[in-house]
Formats: sequence, structure tokens, C-alpha cells
Amino acid sequence: MLHAANLAEFSAVPVSHLSTSAVSASQDAYIRATRFERPTMVFDLEMLRRKYSALAEGLGTASIHYAVKANPAPQVIATLIAQGAKFDAASRGEIDLCLSLGAAPEDIAFGNTIKRASDIAHAWKMGIRQFAADAEDELFKIAENAPGARVILRMRIERSQADWPLSFKFGCSKREALRLMQLGSILGLDIAGISFHAGSQLREAGMWQDALDTAADLWSAAQDAGFALRILNIGGGFPAFYGQPVGNTRDYCAEVMASVRARFGDAVHVMAEPGRGLVAEAGVIVSEVMLVSKKDADDPLRWVYLDIGMFSGLAETIGEAIRYQIETDHDLCEAVEPSILAGPSCDSMDVLYEKTPVMLPAGLRAGDQVRILCTGAYTTSYSSVGFNGFPPLDAVFVG
Amino acid sequence: MLHAANLAEFSAVPVSHLSTSAVSASQDAYIRATRFERPTMVFDLEMLRRKYSALAEGLGTASIHYAVKANPAPQVIATLIAQGAKFDAASRGEIDLCLSLGAAPEDIAFGNTIKRASDIAHAWKMGIRQFAADAEDELFKIAENAPGARVILRMRIERSQADWPLSFKFGCSKREALRLMQLGSILGLDIAGISFHAGSQLREAGMWQDALDTAADLWSAAQDAGFALRILNIGGGFPAFYGQPVGNTRDYCAEVMASVRARFGDAVHVMAEPGRGLVAEAGVIVSEVMLVSKKDADDPLRWVYLDIGMFSGLAETIGEAIRYQIETDHDLCEAVEPSILAGPSCDSMDVLYEKTPVMLPAGLRAGDQVRILCTGAYTTSYSSVGFNGFPPLDAVFVG
Repeated sequence: MLHAANLAEFSAVPVSHLSTSAVSASQDAYIRATRFERPTMVFDLEMLRRKYSALAEGLGTASIHYAVKANPAPQVIATLIAQGAKFDAASRGEIDLCLSLGAAPEDIAFGNTIKRASDIAHAWKMGIRQFAADAEDELFKIAENAPGARVILRMRIERSQADWPLSFKFGCSKREALRLMQLGSILGLDIAGISFHAGSQLREAGMWQDALDTAADLWSAAQDAGFALRILNIGGGFPAFYGQPVGNTRDYCAEVMASVRARFGDAVHVMAEPGRGLVAEAGVIVSEVMLVSKKDADDPLRWVYLDIGMFSGLAETIGEAIRYQIETDHDLCEAVEPSILAGPSCDSMDVLYEKTPVMLPAGLRAGDQVRILCTGAYTTSYSSVGFNGFPPLDAVFVG
Repeated sequence: MLHAANLAEFSAVPVSHLSTSAVSASQDAYIRATRFERPTMVFDLEMLRRKYSALAEGLGTASIHYAVKANPAPQVIATLIAQGAKFDAASRGEIDLCLSLGAAPEDIAFGNTIKRASDIAHAWKMGIRQFAADAEDELFKIAENAPGARVILRMRIERSQADWPLSFKFGCSKREALRLMQLGSILGLDIAGISFHAGSQLREAGMWQDALDTAADLWSAAQDAGFALRILNIGGGFPAFYGQPVGNTRDYCAEVMASVRARFGDAVHVMAEPGRGLVAEAGVIVSEVMLVSKKDADDPLRWVYLDIGMFSGLAETIGEAIRYQIETDHDLCEAVEPSILAGPSCDSMDVLYEKTPVMLPAGLRAGDQVRILCTGAYTTSYSSVGFNGFPPLDAVFVG
């Protein structure tokens, strides 16, 4: 917990001031016209269309496979199909979802490196032709259940400049990748390329450099070993705004692509898998303050409890990694006060921001509405089925 | 990540050997007769009945309010109603659930200190008479929406010997509690007693001592100030077996009650709110190994991926706090190997045990069944609605 002596540093960070432009006109109109009975995400499909266009312009010849896990709402998938997007599916469930909304099977890649054998067989039967792998046993499963399938090998990135460096859960070493290329060929698989994930929230295009260098090193070693790769999957990592500046989307993507082309040339087919970078900014969660309290007159900080928490949509606050920006209806000139922000459940883990409290209007009270910005990604789908008897996060679509 | 040099210490901890007796005969029969297509919790209602009886015998005159959030399955609630249990509800949803299954409104306490005003009004209308509070504004909400209601003030415990010390999300200081007693009386509320939560997983009865001392101190200060309290709610904290020994349930509870009576006498009405301690041991999750892999020949540890993870039921592995015991069908004499255990989602956070790896049979392979023991609490309800397209944790009931 923060002590009184450390509070001074917060006085110059009136968070709500930074974010006033992030709610779109259609979201704002819907929010003003609605009386909310429970936390609700208001998602603007027109913002999504614009974001997709900006990404597509910047990424040029690359194909965009939307990472469905970021927000699997049928409205989001259908909008992206209409925009011409392709899809990165994590499971049989996501494949079936995309197919049911009209996505072509050849536009869906089964991107999870951990797959049930029967799900590989199902995907193959449905026409999915591209599968990810980073391990020997996964190649055996694919060879048996999707004979001759196109395989993208996932390599690991040893260092990362991302806000959230990913652990080694996914991806193998260079040496292992080369071994798997050989094994895959023996098994009759089409080892078509490599993929990586440079980390989440790569706020500057320069943060891709190390990962691209590592990929280029493996690519050239593969060529030397006689493997003619043709697909480079650069994964996700496209950022969203959580308080720290991120650049113009089109320019950012163009810069990433220039770095790719400088290393891999123009002939390589490039895939990108934006999730958060496509959908986060199009969503805003409308929430209600349940209680504001101090547990002792001498406590340095007050607690602000919302009707949404870690188990009803805001799981990305674990470790306080993602810092959502929060808007209120209070006057922007009102004094702000550092607040520990917590969810409504009877669970002591359900605290959103405590190590670094949030600056919120001093006059904030139970019943006030707050709007949690940039929450279109990794919220509704993380929501629990009903922890503490609270229903899952509701979502409505405008635009 | 663990390095090779540290592996020696694991060699004497064949985890699966400790837990062979934890699957009941009816669970075992069901598991052997069933082909599972997805992770499934098999819950034994007869084990629950026996556990309730043991707790009830040990707790004697105390009333047992089951903390519904631990496992809100209708089968669990209905079984406990038949056993004579009362209920601690965290939300309007849990109140309606208990009522719909036949619980009497006077047996349900609204135990969340953070309540929507309209939910207080709803509960009051449905006949709920007891509410928790730890803050001024909550008393105002209760006085307005449930005039004259019985209120239990939650105090905070400054130190805790629990495996999971709870933060200050809940409970107020002694000074604030005394102030709230006065305010509540002015507002016409029936300030009937105090509550606390000494922490989760209090493995020994002695771990309650500090919390009880703190409660007794507040109790006597309240008496001195003229407040005649009559209810002491000792909350939860009753342990389940996760590898570290926990005592015989009845003896443990009797020892806790002796400590209570020594401080508060025989006239005080005692409430207890077991959640985990009632339902955890009655549940076993049947899961399948998806993949076993090493990402480089020189990596010190292998990865074992299951079809269940942090977002599909095992959220309590966050921080590796709860260490579930795992059974396999491999020979108990087979060599074991330290393994990083992870879930199936495309999310790098979805790693169950990495800081302290799990010892699992060296021959474990994709397709093998594993049984995750003592998973009847805080699993199904924590499960996400469908993160990564995986369905929520399934549950079946035997016994």
C-alpha cells in the first residue's frame, strides 16, 4: 500500500484529463440515452472499421489475421469479414464461430501451438489448412490428423522490449526450430514459415527490431539448411492507448513493415495478427461506483469500489500491467484524489489498482458513472461465468 | 524459471504419491466409466454431506452460513439446504439462487460489504434481514433501502497467519467500527455484531488466535461504549488439503470454537462462513494432457500443457498460491520429472506453476488423463465465459 509520504508524485497526474476524446460520438449518444443496470461495454463498430483501414493501409501487402481471442463478439467478426480481414483462431470454438459467420476456411489459421488432436482433425475437415506448432509432438499430431498441412513454426524471442514480455510458454529455440523443420518435412508436412510474438503493447515501431533480427537470423539459417520458407508471421503486439503515447496507426504499421521488408525482402508473404491493436480502442465500459470509503480516518488513501472488477471483465489489471484510463462526469477542474480501485466481489484479490493508485475526482460518490476507456479487447471474453453471482460483462454495439 | 542446479531438491517430492486417497469411490467409478471430451469437475455430494456433518459437529452451537461464491452449483446449494445449512450471499444473484432452491430468507445473510443500493432494496423485499457493512456510505444505503435492518460490521485484521493474508479491501479499523456503531444506531439500524475474515486456508486452529484477540478487543470496547452486541461472525478460513497437512475437521472446528468461547462466553451467537472448507475436497477435475514439450534440448525443464488453465477454472493458481495435487494413471514407481504446468490458451499469463514446478511422471504424454484434486471450490464459478473459445468448466454430480 502507498504511504502518505509518496503521494506528492501523484498530484500532477489528473488521469481523467488525458482521455476526454476517446469516447466516440455514437458511444456518447448511446451512453447518455441509456440507464445502465449493470456494467456494459459499448463498442463502436465504425471505430473498428476505421482502425482496420488504418492498419491495412500501413501494413500494405501483409495479410491481417485478426486474433479472435481479443474480442470474439459475432458483431466484431462479421464487421471484420466485411472489411476483408482474415482470422487467427485459438481453438475449435473460435474456428466454428468464424465459419458460422461466413469466413472462408482458407482465411482462418489455427494459431494455437497447443491443440487437441481431435480439434486438429475437425479443423482439417472444415477446410482449415494452416496450423501453428513449436514442438515435436505437435507435429506428430498435425501429421496424423491433417496430413500435408501447412505449418508455421513458432520461434521464441529471448529478449523483448514490450510492456509485457511474454514468457517461454510459446515458441522454441533456433536450434529446435531447425530440427522441427527437418522432422516436419519427413512427416510430409508443408513447413511454410515461421512466426513469433514480440510481446504485447509494442508502443513504438522500434520495439520490433530485436524480434525481427532474431527471426531474420532463423530465416537465413533455414535457407542455409535447405528449407525454402515463404511465410513470415509477425504476430501481434500492435498497441492501444492506455495513458502512454502510441503513434499514428498507419505510420506505425508502415514503419514496422519497412523494418520487415529491409530484412526479408519483398517476395516473402507477411502475416500479422493484431488483436488488441484492432479492437481495444473501439470499446468503452460504462460502470457505476458502488462505494467510496476510508477504513480509518488516518488511512492515507480511500477505496473506490466499482460494479466491475477482475473477475467480471478487467482481468488484465492483474499485476496492474494494463492501466485503463477512467472518465467521470465530474468537472475537470475538480480536485483529484489518489484512490485504490477495486471490484465488487467478496474476493480480496479483486483489487484493480493498489500499488499505483488512480487519481479520481475528490467528490466521487456511490451511484456515479465512470467510463473505462480502451476496453474493447480482453474484457468480455475474460469475464467469469458468474463469480459471486455477478453476470458476465454485457456488451452493446453501435456504429 | 528454475535452473538445473536447483532441481535436486525436487527429487524427493513425488507429488502424486501423497494424494491417492482423495478421489472417492463414486467419483472413481464415474471417471472410469466416462470418456471426457472437455475438462470436467466431478463433484461428490456425499463427501459434501459428510464434510458438513463434521463441521457442524465441531462448530456446535454456531450457525453455518455456506459462502455461496465458493461453488454456487444448484446441486450443492440444494444438498446444503437439506443438511440444514444457512447461507452467506455475495450478491442479488446469489440471494435469488438460494431462494429459488428453497432456502428461507431468514437463513440468508447479505455478506458483501459493497452493495448496489437497488440490490439492498431487493434483498430487503425478499425477506433478507442481515447485511454486512464496513463504511459510512454503506450504512446510509442500508438505512435507506432496508430500514431497521440487522447490520454486522466488518472489522479488519491487521496481521494474519493465513497462507493468503487478505488485504484491507474489507473491514475497518477499531476506531472506525466504534464510530459506525454510533452512526448506525442514529440511522435506526440494528447494529447486532461484528465480523472478520482471518484469512484463507487457516491450516491450524491456532491460526485463528490473533484475529479472535482483535475481535475480542473491539467487542469489549463496544460494550464499554454502550453497544450490546450479540452476534460474532467468524467468517471463513476453514482449510482444504492442497499438499500441506490439515487436521481432522471436527477436532479443528471444536478447537476454534473453544478459542471463541474462551473469549466471548457462551451467550454470544456465533456464525461461521465456510466456503472452501466445505466444498473443495468434494471436487476433482478430470483433465487431459494436450502437449509435453521442451523448447530447446538444453532447457532444464519441460512444459506440460493441460486442457484447463487459469481462465477456464484454475484462477486460484495466480501467484501459485494454491498448489493443487495432481494424480495420473502412471505407475507410482515411475520416475518423476519437474514440469512447468500451463493451460491451453494463447495467453502467456495462462501458466499454472512455473516458479515452483510440479513433479509429474517422466512418461507423461499428450492424451493422458490427469486428475486435479481438491478442486470443488473456486473453480467452476471463476471460469471465463469462453476465453480463447474454450467453454466454461463443466461439472457433474455424483453421490
